[in-house]
Amino acid sequence: MTLNEVTISRAILEEQHRAIIDHLEMDAAVIGGGPSGLACAALLGEKGVKCALIEKKLSIGGGMWGGGMMFPRIVVQEEARRLLDRFGIAYKEFEEGYYVAKSIEAVAKLTSAACDAGVEFFNLTSVEDVMIRGDGRVGGLVVNWTPVDMAGLHVDPLTMACTCTVDATGHDAMIARMVERKGGNLRVKGESFMWAERAETRILDHTKEVFPGLFVTGMAANAVAGECRMGPIFGGMLLSGERAAELVAERLGR
Amino acid sequence: MTLNEVTISRAILEEQHRAIIDHLEMDAAVIGGGPSGLACAALLGEKGVKCALIEKKLSIGGGMWGGGMMFPRIVVQEEARRLLDRFGIAYKEFEEGYYVAKSIEAVAKLTSAACDAGVEFFNLTSVEDVMIRGDGRVGGLVVNWTPVDMAGLHVDPLTMACTCTVDATGHDAMIARMVERKGGNLRVKGESFMWAERAETRILDHTKEVFPGLFVTGMAANAVAGECRMGPIFGGMLLSGERAAELVAERLGR
Amino acid sequence: MTLNEVTISRAILEEQHRAIIDHLEMDAAVIGGGPSGLACAALLGEKGVKCALIEKKLSIGGGMWGGGMMFPRIVVQEEARRLLDRFGIAYKEFEEGYYVAKSIEAVAKLTSAACDAGVEFFNLTSVEDVMIRGDGRVGGLVVNWTPVDMAGLHVDPLTMACTCTVDATGHDAMIARMVERKGGNLRVKGESFMWAERAETRILDHTKEVFPGLFVTGMAANAVAGECRMGPIFGGMLLSGERAAELVAERLGR
Amino acid sequence: MTLNEVTISRAILEEQHRAIIDHLEMDAAVIGGGPSGLACAALLGEKGVKCALIEKKLSIGGGMWGGGMMFPRIVVQEEARRLLDRFGIAYKEFEEGYYVAKSIEAVAKLTSAACDAGVEFFNLTSVEDVMIRGDGRVGGLVVNWTPVDMAGLHVDPLTMACTCTVDATGHDAMIARMVERKGGNLRVKGESFMWAERAETRILDHTKEVFPGLFVTGMAANAVAGECRMGPIFGGMLLSGERAAELVAERLGR
Amino acid sequence: MTLNEVTISRAILEEQHRAIIDHLEMDAAVIGGGPSGLACAALLGEKGVKCALIEKKLSIGGGMWGGGMMFPRIVVQEEARRLLDRFGIAYKEFEEGYYVAKSIEAVAKLTSAACDAGVEFFNLTSVEDVMIRGDGRVGGLVVNWTPVDMAGLHVDPLTMACTCTVDATGHDAMIARMVERKGGNLRVKGESFMWAERAETRILDHTKEVFPGLFVTGMAANAVAGECRMGPIFGGMLLSGERAAELVAERLGR
Amino acid sequence: MTLNEVTISRAILEEQHRAIIDHLEMDAAVIGGGPSGLACAALLGEKGVKCALIEKKLSIGGGMWGGGMMFPRIVVQEEARRLLDRFGIAYKEFEEGYYVAKSIEAVAKLTSAACDAGVEFFNLTSVEDVMIRGDGRVGGLVVNWTPVDMAGLHVDPLTMACTCTVDATGHDAMIARMVERKGGNLRVKGESFMWAERAETRILDHTKEVFPGLFVTGMAANAVAGECRMGPIFGGMLLSGERAAELVAERLGR
Amino acid sequence: MTLNEVTISRAILEEQHRAIIDHLEMDAAVIGGGPSGLACAALLGEKGVKCALIEKKLSIGGGMWGGGMMFPRIVVQEEARRLLDRFGIAYKEFEEGYYVAKSIEAVAKLTSAACDAGVEFFNLTSVEDVMIRGDGRVGGLVVNWTPVDMAGLHVDPLTMACTCTVDATGHDAMIARMVERKGGNLRVKGESFMWAERAETRILDHTKEVFPGLFVTGMAANAVAGECRMGPIFGGMLLSGERAAELVAERLGR
Amino acid sequence: MTLNEVTISRAILEEQHRAIIDHLEMDAAVIGGGPSGLACAALLGEKGVKCALIEKKLSIGGGMWGGGMMFPRIVVQEEARRLLDRFGIAYKEFEEGYYVAKSIEAVAKLTSAACDAGVEFFNLTSVEDVMIRGDGRVGGLVVNWTPVDMAGLHVDPLTMACTCTVDATGHDAMIARMVERKGGNLRVKGESFMWAERAETRILDHTKEVFPGLFVTGMAANAVAGECRMGPIFGGMLLSGERAAELVAERLGR
Repeated sequence: MTLNEVTISRAILEEQHRAIIDHLEMDAAVIGGGPSGLACAALLGEKGVKCALIEKKLSIGGGMWGGGMMFPRIVVQEEARRLLDRFGIAYKEFEEGYYVAKSIEAVAKLTSAACDAGVEFFNLTSVEDVMIRGDGRVGGLVVNWTPVDMAGLHVDPLTMACTCTVDATGHDAMIARMVERKGGNLRVKGESFMWAERAETRILDHTKEVFPGLFVTGMAANAVAGECRMGPIFGGMLLSGERAAELVAERLGR
Repeated sequence: MTLNEVTISRAILEEQHRAIIDHLEMDAAVIGGGPSGLACAALLGEKGVKCALIEKKLSIGGGMWGGGMMFPRIVVQEEARRLLDRFGIAYKEFEEGYYVAKSIEAVAKLTSAACDAGVEFFNLTSVEDVMIRGDGRVGGLVVNWTPVDMAGLHVDPLTMACTCTVDATGHDAMIARMVERKGGNLRVKGESFMWAERAETRILDHTKEVFPGLFVTGMAANAVAGECRMGPIFGGMLLSGERAAELVAERLGR
Repeated sequence: MTLNEVTISRAILEEQHRAIIDHLEMDAAVIGGGPSGLACAALLGEKGVKCALIEKKLSIGGGMWGGGMMFPRIVVQEEARRLLDRFGIAYKEFEEGYYVAKSIEAVAKLTSAACDAGVEFFNLTSVEDVMIRGDGRVGGLVVNWTPVDMAGLHVDPLTMACTCTVDATGHDAMIARMVERKGGNLRVKGESFMWAERAETRILDHTKEVFPGLFVTGMAANAVAGECRMGPIFGGMLLSGERAAELVAERLGR
Repeated sequence: MTLNEVTISRAILEEQHRAIIDHLEMDAAVIGGGPSGLACAALLGEKGVKCALIEKKLSIGGGMWGGGMMFPRIVVQEEARRLLDRFGIAYKEFEEGYYVAKSIEAVAKLTSAACDAGVEFFNLTSVEDVMIRGDGRVGGLVVNWTPVDMAGLHVDPLTMACTCTVDATGHDAMIARMVERKGGNLRVKGESFMWAERAETRILDHTKEVFPGLFVTGMAANAVAGECRMGPIFGGMLLSGERAAELVAERLGR
Repeated sequence: MTLNEVTISRAILEEQHRAIIDHLEMDAAVIGGGPSGLACAALLGEKGVKCALIEKKLSIGGGMWGGGMMFPRIVVQEEARRLLDRFGIAYKEFEEGYYVAKSIEAVAKLTSAACDAGVEFFNLTSVEDVMIRGDGRVGGLVVNWTPVDMAGLHVDPLTMACTCTVDATGHDAMIARMVERKGGNLRVKGESFMWAERAETRILDHTKEVFPGLFVTGMAANAVAGECRMGPIFGGMLLSGERAAELVAERLGR
Repeated sequence: MTLNEVTISRAILEEQHRAIIDHLEMDAAVIGGGPSGLACAALLGEKGVKCALIEKKLSIGGGMWGGGMMFPRIVVQEEARRLLDRFGIAYKEFEEGYYVAKSIEAVAKLTSAACDAGVEFFNLTSVEDVMIRGDGRVGGLVVNWTPVDMAGLHVDPLTMACTCTVDATGHDAMIARMVERKGGNLRVKGESFMWAERAETRILDHTKEVFPGLFVTGMAANAVAGECRMGPIFGGMLLSGERAAELVAERLGR
Repeated sequence: MTLNEVTISRAILEEQHRAIIDHLEMDAAVIGGGPSGLACAALLGEKGVKCALIEKKLSIGGGMWGGGMMFPRIVVQEEARRLLDRFGIAYKEFEEGYYVAKSIEAVAKLTSAACDAGVEFFNLTSVEDVMIRGDGRVGGLVVNWTPVDMAGLHVDPLTMACTCTVDATGHDAMIARMVERKGGNLRVKGESFMWAERAETRILDHTKEVFPGLFVTGMAANAVAGECRMGPIFGGMLLSGERAAELVAERLGR
Repeated sequence: MTLNEVTISRAILEEQHRAIIDHLEMDAAVIGGGPSGLACAALLGEKGVKCALIEKKLSIGGGMWGGGMMFPRIVVQEEARRLLDRFGIAYKEFEEGYYVAKSIEAVAKLTSAACDAGVEFFNLTSVEDVMIRGDGRVGGLVVNWTPVDMAGLHVDPLTMACTCTVDATGHDAMIARMVERKGGNLRVKGESFMWAERAETRILDHTKEVFPGLFVTGMAANAVAGECRMGPIFGGMLLSGERAAELVAERLGR
């Protein structure tokens, strides 16, 4: 068989076009490909929710790649160990209750799990705004290519509709802040000091629907609540992603 | 149990320190975390070779994340389909002999495979130079933190010794060019025009030891040989990574 | 009727997808949306040639927008006046044989003419390389989104096949230089001093097929030939575009 | 005849000088060359209003060039179809009531229409401030070359007087904000969420004189009113431009 | 003996690893390597306090290197002359009561003194946040590599615990501002006009514990208090560093 | 009388327009507003030569403003003292034969003299190329606004014709290099080491017509000749400017 | 005589050193080298006031170099014509009462006049802060090299004492804003819309001592008062400079 | 006593002025403040040579601050241990013959030693060129403020004369390259691969006078010779600095 460059191009264009068209309307959109977003999306996919993960960068994984201070290791506590097992991430007990994993493996395994669960990924895609219509719910996302903004160009966005939106954008809580800035009844208090114990304990309470149609998870949940930060321990991130997936699925009636 | 920030920090520092010290001397170092480098490292790991993958960016995956023109799909031809199967990457037949996969899944599954095979990853790590001693072989790498260079700082590097070095840095063929620039008997001809058929056919011949201790794979192999480029078809990349792993293992006597 | 954001997005995606797929194989591709490229494409379209104009910037028009030194007027001499008439560009006689037009109108009317003639435009699209297969002809273009490069990202390109390629990239002669740099038998001498009379007289001779499948027009033609430059007089540009269209049509048997 | 570079230069300088001097006093100035500004200027010109369009960029067309997410297509709804016809922009029905046009053709045809209607264009020209004298009306513009600002230079501006000013600067509503910032009795609320239906319906009401002598059109109208945004549907833009032209003509007694 | 690159690398890694691990918990951390921070750290070290100096830049010395307007001389008044003597910094009487020293020697001698006193230095290390747990005291620092921020990367920090924290970051008073911004009961008034006499006289009063666990010294002390600035006279800086060391030692019961 | 902004604008536009049109053809153009260019232009003007000085920066004065190492003083030796007197620049004898002047006064007085002599200044104007027609002489300049280049815009230049061109662009010798790069029979050797005595002695010999129609003066003269550099002594600069004026006047038959 | 590079360096260093030392204490300091600052300094010098002009840029002249929109002409009205005559600036009557001069000549002649009057210039010198001691008067300036800030370096400033300070920094009114920001009883309202007539009429009233020891002139005077701006008409600037000089001289008892 | 800001400024200016004037002619100038330059300067000073160390950065210490990969430790081998002792740098034996020191202490102690030996430091000072007169010897340096270049300004340099020049600029060998580029009979081969053993052994041979009046030390010596590099082992650096000091002293007859 002879390889044809045009067929290769057509294959890529046709397949991705189908994926985009197919996700112009979906059950749930997760914004941000860090640990909580990936865990949430993977678990939503496993529950049969039609879901996309939207990431502004070229690569998926968010702040997890660099571990702590560029030493690519992360720590997970006892309560979240079962999620490491669930996603197939190898770990080692450092002291009782402290499990160390490779940050790069964690990214790869979480992403693999989301792919296996049927989640569609849109990378290099920025969320510029949200769609809110007469019902007052966040009902969709206004998206654009990230490089358009990086290159300082002025190009109009497109729109993707979704029943539930999950803000997993980390301590910036970008979607929640967008809603706040444009007058939605929501206040983002911003993350507080470092206090791992407290931050890890409270995060599940803060993981919730903070505005009709908008859920927060991971550091975005703590940032909205004005809660403490926790540093390179990731148990709370994974558990919060799991909780967000449960809440979204419940809302969707799954 | 109460979480302690200092224990978290210590866990990360101790574990990564052990990993670095353990890899100051190793069998093989693969430079570049794109498809051929990941495939090569994963397969070396499976053969029991003590191997590290060194990537200058924060994320692993190289040019694969963006598919073709930011449409995150890649194409693989019949000959390499078995490697998609081997690494657990899902695909779909587009036309006879053309298989389309998601580029993001490909990165995640290849990285997962390398992790499972025991490969150690050093990301945000740049190779500044190579070590060549009296025997005239490339015997190690001179490495530094990538952000040191990005920030325009002047900081000395460290050294990692390895018996075999695999240049998987893509069309820049950075390691080969380093050896050439400093007077090694090696010429990097540079990649030629686009001609997928030819590029994919010849790449296995170009995958070889081009200087004592230095192997080239993927586009680095074609760039050294002055061979054509192939665009977003990745069969040759994976097969070249496999071939490089075989050659290195053979040289190491595995 | 109620407007639906998702239908709007789908309409844009579907229509443009069809246009891209339809032009993965075409008769002629004109690279560069300045005066000679626009005139060439418009006239090719009028001859029924399936043709696309590929422009790296967001806007079409190249160096014509700014007239001379940001005074948005251009001059056209007697010989090319009929092309102003043909494209419906208003003008005024300044001195005998010197006609002044508004540069902005010239861009708009040339672009309108090309649209009316069925030319498809791909803006924000950069040509990274050319495709040359066994027959040694330039047979296609390796393209990417311009913002990918502006943002310093590493993303693979796609390929568009075309029987004839027209380099209308101005004094850089970027396509011709690409072929030269990669070893094609072609020499780009670079534009010479300013000498309007000579530059305008010789440009038609320099407008030709300079490599199998590759035609040059406008300042790219003069640059390949080492000919003089002419400044803000545009008669030669338009006539050269016309000539290139004739040559390409002839080669295609129209 | 021999071409003379100096005559070419003189022709450009003389003609543009006349155009500038002629427009130091005019009936109407439209700021911003996007769809609403172009439509407004073209229709003002057709009504015999002495009018200039002032655009800060080198090219005319604003945010229309890139369609939606760099896919150069725009959508227009039934109500505005007659304006596509009027300006000669080709379109295709996608679904009932949704018409798709090429964004590049739309720019070219709107600009052509404005040129044919006698509108004078000043590109690369930024409005730094407005002139307000004793009558409390916006009575002129303080303009400068855009590159002066891009290059970080300190150069004084010049002034152009106009009876009516149309702010067509998009969601920044730059002229209205200038008036607000310097204490004028005017409040720019800023654009709200995406809701195409509502944004398209309300825009005509928001198109009005918001301060003595200052009219707003297009997204600037919605931004002043705190109205929703609409994305890549352009019917409201064109209709708003038409409405602004009617209001300005009425004020001028045409 | 033959030198081995790997042993050199191992020596560096092992020794510094031990130093980091050893300082994850310490008595006092001084942030900022300018004159007051260096003096404070050196004197704390001499008192047997386990202490680290954390500096965000590559070099130690802060604003002292450049003297006044790049003329590398500093002035010290009578009251602080004994500290020049104590640290071995040569000086010359310019007028009665005004002693001039070389700014570069001052940096070198202060740094030498701190090293001799057993202070551990962490350079290229930024403090991103502080740790505050249930007792409401600043109990540690959230640190990261400076180049991570300079390179615009997103990498998680690590944590170092300390009983006392000394903010010696100059007029930015960065640690105090962090505490203020996140809601701590502390107000940073900002430095006032230049008035050397007053600034030098009051600085000792402003050198104190401004929040549980947080001490300020040098210009940070004056900035918190809204006190005047003093320019290139350094007596107050040194005396303030000495005072801070006394207060910290007292708090630690030394 | 009431001041009218439009009259102010018109006055500026009309007067400068006349100046530009009047200088599209001239006897001599001096490129570069440093000491030799200013002296040359002033003396040409005094001889009744129709002359313009073209300077790429906003301010006139070139490298003279900063004196030596930002200490705004310059030195002139005995031989050139009469030129200080001629231009009314105050000075002081430092040692026998060494006269010190204020660099800022030197700029102001030289510029004043050129203005008084009727020289027209075009600042913010870059020379992009030269015009050479059939007679093989440099017969004009291809000019553009400097901010066009600073802002990275693509705008065509205009042309100014002149019988004689003086390259006073300093050690870059930009006009001479342009001629060299495009194939003119001229070699720019580049300035050599610092050796003030020799550089000052030889500069008058190097001040000459180096290509038909092109004269060099100041450091451009030494750079073409491969002569030494002299640092912040300006006698040779002024004398070279005087010599260039004499040569140009002679060529023009004055 | 043989020229010696070291003598040249010594001459520059010694002379400028004397000038700096001599101006560490002076009667008046004018900040900003635009038209009002130059006029003020020149007239102060003529009155025998020991005065320095401090300019942050390398060149003197401020915003005057570029005339209006890079057309280097300025306009002066009847009332200020006598100052053009006084400074020897040539002009031409455009319409009755509107005189046009060359902006470059205006800079050169004003600077020459200031030099002749004995004003000392310190260019590349930024004012970072002011000195205010017990008497509550602005009594000096905290200065630094401008390139220190441009290069992002941290270097301490030096201090220059002066009895009167004149803020001639244009519409930024930088010195007045400094005093305001640090709590001085002074409010900078910011410049208002363009209205030349009003701005020119009121400026003399706004030229005054706005804080003990601090005078404002030129656009800084209008900016403090919230007065209108006037564009490229310079009569008010010169008259304001003259008024400021009178007020300062009066305060100093001259 | 009351502190006076003006006296402080005068003290700094006077003292540094004296230092500069005093070093316009000197025995030896060492360029570059890394380990070899510092050692060389310190030892020259101890021998009574009038010597300055010229460093382009604000801080002294060069590449030593960051240790290896930002781990601030350096290694020194047995042969150079005596120099650690001589300069008072503490160390610890890691393995037999490998001594580890703190890089920050090494900088501070070497700098202190140079200060104590009477070496004058000029930091933020760049060498732009060298002075070579009739005798063909490097006889001085052409220097400028580093921030002038960082800020992109055009300011003339000054000159410092010296009998011997030591290039200690590291692997760039900047002074040697300057001499080579301007035609001096000297070839800089560039550093070769990493091979610590060889690099450390050969460096003393390469430390020599490579052009009349120009000595090389440290990595500059190896770079000129095309010798290998050695990484973060500093024995050779210190020994080379010592050797250079001996050679220079010998040449000067000390």
